[in-house]
Amino acid sequence: VARVALDAMGGDRAPLETVLGAAAAAERGYDVILVGDRSILAPMVVDHESYLPIVHASEVIGMHEDAVRAIREKPDASVSVAARLVRDGIVSAFVSAGSTGAALATAAITIGRLDGVDRPAIATMLPTPDSPTVLIDSGANPDCRPEYFPQFALMGAVIAEVHFGLEQPRVGLLNIGEEKGKGRELEKAAYELLEATPVNFIGNVEGRDLSSDAVDVLVTDGFTGNVVLKTTEGTAQFVAQMALDAMATMSLEDQKRVLPVLSGLRARLDYETFGGAHLVGSRGVVVIAHGASSSVAIANAIALAADGADRDLVNRLADRVA
Amino acid sequence: VARVALDAMGGDRAPLETVLGAAAAAERGYDVILVGDRSILAPMVVDHESYLPIVHASEVIGMHEDAVRAIREKPDASVSVAARLVRDGIVSAFVSAGSTGAALATAAITIGRLDGVDRPAIATMLPTPDSPTVLIDSGANPDCRPEYFPQFALMGAVIAEVHFGLEQPRVGLLNIGEEKGKGRELEKAAYELLEATPVNFIGNVEGRDLSSDAVDVLVTDGFTGNVVLKTTEGTAQFVAQMALDAMATMSLEDQKRVLPVLSGLRARLDYETFGGAHLVGSRGVVVIAHGASSSVAIANAIALAADGADRDLVNRLADRVA
Repeated sequence: VARVALDAMGGDRAPLETVLGAAAAAERGYDVILVGDRSILAPMVVDHESYLPIVHASEVIGMHEDAVRAIREKPDASVSVAARLVRDGIVSAFVSAGSTGAALATAAITIGRLDGVDRPAIATMLPTPDSPTVLIDSGANPDCRPEYFPQFALMGAVIAEVHFGLEQPRVGLLNIGEEKGKGRELEKAAYELLEATPVNFIGNVEGRDLSSDAVDVLVTDGFTGNVVLKTTEGTAQFVAQMALDAMATMSLEDQKRVLPVLSGLRARLDYETFGGAHLVGSRGVVVIAHGASSSVAIANAIALAADGADRDLVNRLADRVA
Repeated sequence: VARVALDAMGGDRAPLETVLGAAAAAERGYDVILVGDRSILAPMVVDHESYLPIVHASEVIGMHEDAVRAIREKPDASVSVAARLVRDGIVSAFVSAGSTGAALATAAITIGRLDGVDRPAIATMLPTPDSPTVLIDSGANPDCRPEYFPQFALMGAVIAEVHFGLEQPRVGLLNIGEEKGKGRELEKAAYELLEATPVNFIGNVEGRDLSSDAVDVLVTDGFTGNVVLKTTEGTAQFVAQMALDAMATMSLEDQKRVLPVLSGLRARLDYETFGGAHLVGSRGVVVIAHGASSSVAIANAIALAADGADRDLVNRLADRVA
């Protein structure tokens, strides 16, 4: 199995949840290296049965720092040390739940882009009733040019093939109407380019299909992608909270009957299932985890990274976009 | 009470659901005029106890026609006849569940814009645990310039004041991070302009706060607004479907206990509650209803339009943006 470096200092709940997540992944057979301050991490690792090697990094980048400047000014930041382990071939992938901007910046500077890729993009997997939908770009590039969309489409299709075993995944353009000619100037131009791209392009898809099985890969700019991603999270939480409030009005006996059903539901909806999102277009496997990641999410992000590396994700992407 | 014209021919489920909705609104004391083909509508109205006058319109604009061209080529379209009733002061408002583009076009051509408004915008009300959130623009202007955002903010605040009785509603800019300086060039420029606008601007707000009580008015461009609106619908439906699937595994006895609780939940989440969205910036009250509107949604859209007219919405908007 591929070896994965985890930025153990990145994330709102680091390092406790990151270390617990790494331990959980190691227990599932994954090969994980912790990257971070050894004086903090070493005492935490002693408690775990699985062996978790530590690569020391003396600095940390906070969630609210200017990412590009921080990457320059803190060469020994945990996320940058993790990226260098990928660049140098010591590990096959790195995972970070820290500042997304910092992970993007260090991936660009340290690891570099694949030939044929103008902008690496974040490919997030959204739960749907059937096979998950890949949303790309979900946050790396707020301002996009139409020329990026065919690249996003090709890379998103590779993710759907590699992780969900789909052949000819259906690629849709996120838009405000189904007919050709809808949307901004950006979508109108992107539509033309996507028609000429060697993917299974099914045309425009609307926001309500984000959680449906109507499409396998949804292409959009990084601003729209990030907003809709957080919107689905907020809406799902809102509905779940309403359901809990409603349940609280039931008798204790009835609540006991409903609880197992709700727990099953939670697992199906859980955004922790994938734990992270691939940054595609980089010359290495990079997985960006949610800032609020629990140990469960971290373990699943490590699994996603290792599976991507084991399935030769980067070479398959390189072949497709070249 | 204000008199409202209903485009009885507009919508996926017209004219049956529109007529039923008008009848329901009339029974609640609203004053409604049906606009559409008399030969179709007259036999349907006979069945209802409430008196529903009909203004004849010989043409209909379909959901997939080119809206601007259709408005020009079909002067007797039901939506245009309804708009002329507003322009001529015969009614105080019009409601349409037909093509949004056609309603926007006829409002612009027939009724015109308020002074100080570059672009009329759609202000949609989203359910949240507490007071609803106004999302503006939710679809009228896919491509926006930063200068439109202060106008959206002022108009959205008036909607929150008029319909929810809020004083100094909190206005947020929909963005991909909370810090100033986040987002596209569009958001960076709009942020500066919003800081100088006489509204209670609280800064950037993320997609996950769309369903929260953190903000009262959410300002964004019409592309992003439309996509997130449909995303919340899709996600809520998805979660509801998952819940139903989970419930189906319970015993019939248990299902009977849970059903009343779920029904209450449905009412709180229901996007039919408001039935429609104000087109603000027009020189008249215009309410755009969901294309798939049921009679319940139509009745609530009529109520929204009448309440807006009764509360002097257009003059209050005119004073604010002048």
